[in-house]
Amino acid sequence: MPMDKRNLEICLSPLLYEPECHKESIVVIIDILRATSAICTAFAHGAQSIIPVAGIEEAREYKSQGYLVAAERDGFVLDFADFGNSPFNFTRERVKGKTIVYSTTNGTGIIKQAGSAGVIVIGSFLNISSLTGWLIEQEREVVLFCAGWKNRFNLEDTICAGAIASRLMSSSLYSTICDSTLAALDLWSIARTDLPGYIEKSAHRSRLREKGLDDCIEFCLTEDYTEIIPVIKDGVLVNNIL
Amino acid sequence: MPMDKRNLEICLSPLLYEPECHKESIVVIIDILRATSAICTAFAHGAQSIIPVAGIEEAREYKSQGYLVAAERDGFVLDFADFGNSPFNFTRERVKGKTIVYSTTNGTGIIKQAGSAGVIVIGSFLNISSLTGWLIEQEREVVLFCAGWKNRFNLEDTICAGAIASRLMSSSLYSTICDSTLAALDLWSIARTDLPGYIEKSAHRSRLREKGLDDCIEFCLTEDYTEIIPVIKDGVLVNNIL
Repeated sequence: MPMDKRNLEICLSPLLYEPECHKESIVVIIDILRATSAICTAFAHGAQSIIPVAGIEEAREYKSQGYLVAAERDGFVLDFADFGNSPFNFTRERVKGKTIVYSTTNGTGIIKQAGSAGVIVIGSFLNISSLTGWLIEQEREVVLFCAGWKNRFNLEDTICAGAIASRLMSSSLYSTICDSTLAALDLWSIARTDLPGYIEKSAHRSRLREKGLDDCIEFCLTEDYTEIIPVIKDGVLVNNIL
Repeated sequence: MPMDKRNLEICLSPLLYEPECHKESIVVIIDILRATSAICTAFAHGAQSIIPVAGIEEAREYKSQGYLVAAERDGFVLDFADFGNSPFNFTRERVKGKTIVYSTTNGTGIIKQAGSAGVIVIGSFLNISSLTGWLIEQEREVVLFCAGWKNRFNLEDTICAGAIASRLMSSSLYSTICDSTLAALDLWSIARTDLPGYIEKSAHRSRLREKGLDDCIEFCLTEDYTEIIPVIKDGVLVNNIL
């Protein structure tokens, strides 16, 4: 008798997340422009840990205690922070061996929202192969949780979720009855042939461009910059999945 | 100087609806399997008006007052109702000249939710050409509001919204900065080549099939069964847009 397939779901916006359904699941946080790409980059560059905080005041309090703080809202660095949300800020010189306190418009909020899930990991194109390889080794349901933009659906996170879902479904170990997953798979099938061109048309792309913050987009669409899969342990992001 | 284009948005789930943004807009309610297809059919068959009610108890109260009541939850007819949610129930013999009280799992709830919008009309494939032709004549923002399934995203309503959006965008009178609209347009571009085959794979299709309620799906995907555009006037659906 064939083994029961594992359930795969995609959550397209924080407003659609159903925490009571995912207490045993692996939840993959996806906010590729720019939070989850920046987190993967920080660990690739030797960061020791990242403390995600949802609120600005909490980030400010950490700063007053001497922590290195990365914090932005709507793409702009907060005045008290050491730097903002671009992956390019998380250089080896700045982050190696350090603990970083991190607060962003969308991504760090949904890490908190997923707090009751079985396992919470960070996903992006930058770690897509190691992430999907690791997921396939686990006998668990998977939820791909897209941060969106201020609670709205966004294309770039949905496309990344579609790319991850495509690899998982190819393993024949997963099944889905979730229309969001079917939609993301189809959108990925359109986007994959020209990913930068496709992301170009998305609303967030326009928002970043207007603010001159779009220099990191090509980097954020790079597959397999790192093999690290950041994971939440006791509320803190560390680089060791095991 | 070119005229400013009208804004077009798609709302993919009731949880994502932002009423404060749409007080001046035309909101098109889309719940094609089966509420908005049934409403279009009822008016095509001569119904005089339809009173949408969100709650079961309210529907029961109307029944006790002698009204004709169509009411279902999860695809099943409520015991006190005259009939349920299939368009095939709304025969000319039953509905001609009548006022019908109507309550469904998803569709009638979002009609209430959109209550503060400028104009609220009913959309489906059954009236797509007259609906889009009428929208193009109006100088107003348009929101295509997908009912989804129990607050979740669903494919069939998103596809219908994409079909409507495709016609509006072709007029060159609309613009969108809404990622949901871009996604729905792309999904429609995939689905349009084999619409029944595409809808076949959606979750709601499975739900209806399991209950033996899928006999009306082909009908619900028929374009231009009627030219009627049902509209809310003083809380009641009537068949006259003017």
